[in-house]
Amino acid sequence: MRKIHVIGIGAGDPEQLTLQAVRALRSTDVFFILDKGEVKADLTRLRRDILDTHLPQGTYRVVEARDPERDRAADGAAYSPAVGDWRSARADIYERLIAEELGEEETGAFLVWGDPSLYDSTLGILEEVLERDAVAFEYDVVPGISSVSALVARHRTGLNRIARPVQITTGRRLAEGFPEGVDDVVVMLDAQQTFRQYAQEDVDIYWGAYIGTPDEILVSGPIAEAAPRIERLRAGARERKGWIMDTYLLRRHPRD
Amino acid sequence: MRKIHVIGIGAGDPEQLTLQAVRALRSTDVFFILDKGEVKADLTRLRRDILDTHLPQGTYRVVEARDPERDRAADGAAYSPAVGDWRSARADIYERLIAEELGEEETGAFLVWGDPSLYDSTLGILEEVLERDAVAFEYDVVPGISSVSALVARHRTGLNRIARPVQITTGRRLAEGFPEGVDDVVVMLDAQQTFRQYAQEDVDIYWGAYIGTPDEILVSGPIAEAAPRIERLRAGARERKGWIMDTYLLRRHPRD
Ligand SMILES: C[S@@+](CC[C@H](N)C(=O)[O-])C[C@H]1O[C@@H](n2cnc3c(N)ncnc32)[C@H](O)[C@@H]1O
Ligand SMILES: C[S@@+](CC[C@H](N)C(=O)[O-])C[C@H]1O[C@@H](n2cnc3c(N)ncnc32)[C@H](O)[C@@H]1O
Repeated sequence: MRKIHVIGIGAGDPEQLTLQAVRALRSTDVFFILDKGEVKADLTRLRRDILDTHLPQGTYRVVEARDPERDRAADGAAYSPAVGDWRSARADIYERLIAEELGEEETGAFLVWGDPSLYDSTLGILEEVLERDAVAFEYDVVPGISSVSALVARHRTGLNRIARPVQITTGRRLAEGFPEGVDDVVVMLDAQQTFRQYAQEDVDIYWGAYIGTPDEILVSGPIAEAAPRIERLRAGARERKGWIMDTYLLRRHPRD
Repeated sequence: MRKIHVIGIGAGDPEQLTLQAVRALRSTDVFFILDKGEVKADLTRLRRDILDTHLPQGTYRVVEARDPERDRAADGAAYSPAVGDWRSARADIYERLIAEELGEEETGAFLVWGDPSLYDSTLGILEEVLERDAVAFEYDVVPGISSVSALVARHRTGLNRIARPVQITTGRRLAEGFPEGVDDVVVMLDAQQTFRQYAQEDVDIYWGAYIGTPDEILVSGPIAEAAPRIERLRAGARERKGWIMDTYLLRRHPRD
């Protein structure tokens, strides 16, 4: 039976691999690296560096494939369906990779950015491939340090306040309003700097870009003061590197 | 200047330490282990085992101290204040440990269960000690795999569904109602099995106890079927071991 590891590799700092992840890497014959195109070449390189650091050369194969582009134009209202189609197209690729590039008795691995449980489609795609029933395999999941954990560690703060909840959401959702029933909100996947919507409110922001990498930028403070600084730093960094990945925690002063 | 590492050690599986955590362990002179009393002796042992595994004997000191008991009777309505007092009492102890047990040029460490960012008071206590200004130190935070990441990895599912938010909350909060605006909710610190409140609803549960340890128990499925099984397994395990730690994800079938 073919085996697959879905390995969380942390969100930027190669030292944030777990011992379990290193062990899983070492038991892998074939690594599948899906390249999301131009701007993500840096992330592909980081995955390759992790393999070079932890594995003796010549003990594994790497198969790179091109991830189909997501239809970003259709992202507006119909976010989920567009993601759904994209996922099917990816399932085709994953199925082919597993069937053609992995021997019956071999172990393959997908290296997932951060923690595979947060805004990542690998597990959903593998389930879809299994449901199609064209290729059989077992798989397991190795958790990783998410960009969320890395963000708050760097800011030396908690996610939740004592006995209170925390929500993790997307920029798109935050644009619809501050979530109900929580005062601590982590925002991912925000290309629009939606935090600016709350710049007049009694909110602290803990922001980080390229967390865990040599390009890391951190800003925190009352959002009215921090927001213009973040905008400036973000624009500069984005121009310099060609892409940006940022995450932030909004902490509203509780009303009760 | 004294230095302190706050090190997330994962939620049960010693292989879920990161390389960064191992490096931080190796740069530590004095480990502070706070024992929460009888039932948590197992967790103290796990911390000791981690040190034994990763550090040559005789290269470090361990200082154990007794954590003040939290006033659980006062927990009802006034949860936060009781936690606040308890935190002050702990700040006294931390201050004394750092001042008396750590040399001016030495590095100390607190080993935090899971990820220091989730329902853990270590960072808040250290900030309180610093504010008192009686002992000076620098500190950093090493993120860890939380029981939340470990839970969903074992169930091979995500925390959020595509483009949707997820909330992390406590059993106490869940007892007040299913959180607004989310269909995916992770519940921690639930001694009351509050999930039973939702047993008649269209909800799936992904439950785990002692995740990552040899005693691990996992149950998942529609809550109506899973809840009685969890109750039975939970009662048996609790009786056998004398304590239990469990976490679960509730996934409601979205209405939109
Ligand atoms: C598709 S999601 C994947 C998240 C990933 N699974 C994790 O656990 O961090 C990508 C988003 O994660 C966040 N992100 C990932 N790595 C990051 C980093 N090093 N610094 C800041 N944000 C990061 C950004 O919000 C980005 O839009
Ligand atoms: C005080 S909180 C600390 C959480 C920790 N910082 C983390 O990141 O997992 C303790 C709660 O974490 C959860 N927990 C911690 N370790 C666990 C484990 N191994 N299995 C199941 N739940 C666990 C339980 O919900 C427990 O009530």
